[in-house]
Amino acid sequence: MLFFTQCFGAVLDLIHLRFQHYKAKRVFSAAGQLVCVVNPTHSLKYAPSRCAAVQASTEQGILPPCHHHEAVHDPQLVPCTCPLFSCPWEGHLEVVVSHLRQTHRINILQGAEIVFLATDMHLPAPTDWIIMHSCLGHQFLLVLRKQEKYEGHPQFFATMMLIGTPTQADNFTYRLELNRNQRRLKWEATPRSILECVDSVISDGDCLVLNTSLAQLFSDNGSLAIGIAITTSKVHSSEAEM
Amino acid sequence: MLFFTQCFGAVLDLIHLRFQHYKAKRVFSAAGQLVCVVNPTHSLKYAPSRCAAVQASTEQGILPPCHHHEAVHDPQLVPCTCPLFSCPWEGHLEVVVSHLRQTHRINILQGAEIVFLATDMHLPAPTDWIIMHSCLGHQFLLVLRKQEKYEGHPQFFATMMLIGTPTQADNFTYRLELNRNQRRLKWEATPRSILECVDSVISDGDCLVLNTSLAQLFSDNGSLAIGIAITTSKVHSSEAEM
Repeated sequence: MLFFTQCFGAVLDLIHLRFQHYKAKRVFSAAGQLVCVVNPTHSLKYAPSRCAAVQASTEQGILPPCHHHEAVHDPQLVPCTCPLFSCPWEGHLEVVVSHLRQTHRINILQGAEIVFLATDMHLPAPTDWIIMHSCLGHQFLLVLRKQEKYEGHPQFFATMMLIGTPTQADNFTYRLELNRNQRRLKWEATPRSILECVDSVISDGDCLVLNTSLAQLFSDNGSLAIGIAITTSKVHSSEAEM
Repeated sequence: MLFFTQCFGAVLDLIHLRFQHYKAKRVFSAAGQLVCVVNPTHSLKYAPSRCAAVQASTEQGILPPCHHHEAVHDPQLVPCTCPLFSCPWEGHLEVVVSHLRQTHRINILQGAEIVFLATDMHLPAPTDWIIMHSCLGHQFLLVLRKQEKYEGHPQFFATMMLIGTPTQADNFTYRLELNRNQRRLKWEATPRSILECVDSVISDGDCLVLNTSLAQLFSDNGSLAIGIAITTSKVHSSEAEM
């Protein structure tokens, strides 16, 4: 009986995935553009001390110590940077990607341009949609967060972080693009390093910010498609270019 | 004595204007791009009945009646669409531009691409920055508004309206672009007709929306430069283009 229940559950999951993929294909028919369906996760709040510790050490130009130990054993160790969970893990920057994949089951996609299709936008805040993006020899973490900065008024915040140092991050530019209903919104910026705290990037509002009404205009049947492109920064486009 | 005081005032005004223009030139050195310095105006609130009347009649596909008269004498008459003042004026659509210029002293600029430099962004909400833009044989009204949707949290809303009918508006696409501090934000949409209420466009959030922190990142010395471009819509870029 348990076997049949599990089989039925698996079939339902497959139908749901197929439906999501059909929706994605309907929205993005451009050949060769990889569409990734990203399901939401309810985020568990960070310990505030951790965020502050990461921030402070990044500002001082050193890798952040783990907040679980009073003394820093190895300054090369990085705490787990997954914004979803209060995770006690710490390790070298080079193994952050495999930790995020294996422990937090965050998908990784290859390609210079991908489409991130966040499903179930109606879910209550706080909710996160997260994916890793492998491109130009580096890995990036894309975080879309639904959060209530002002009570009763949820907003969506999207940002991209390089799984690398701030100096490495300065070599790239990322672009997030929404395009639907005869409206187009583009955000371009230098990615932040994952050594900076994603929570503070979002609370500073230094990212793509969408009110609920705009998010609805850009959504199709509860799913929001964000086109992502990463390029290496040339001499950065000055204000004169406008 | 009065004469000397007035002279001194005029000299101060000239110095201030020169300083604003210098700032504009420093921000936008691109040759041939017209920079227009726009000073803020504290907006006087609309009578809500007026907005509702304009909205209702636009939805029914007729030109809005003036809210000052219970009976509609001439359905071709349009009330004053200046979002700044509760103005009793009404007239034909063709003379709205001259009314806005002459009565409300709103500047008009020529050119397909201009830069709108809004000064004194620090002023408290509600504040409006308004200009008319003549381009492709039509006149457009650009409204930048600082408003507190959530108490204590002012936001900036920018939109473009065609001084024409909704059918005429459908033939155009406008682009607003901010570019500073290695960040770029672009908003593209079909302009709304001035027969629709600018207040409702802003309250729906169907426009470029900036939090105070983002506005500060894009500002230079308290002035926000917005690049504006208007094009005729071809077959509208579909979602597949992303």
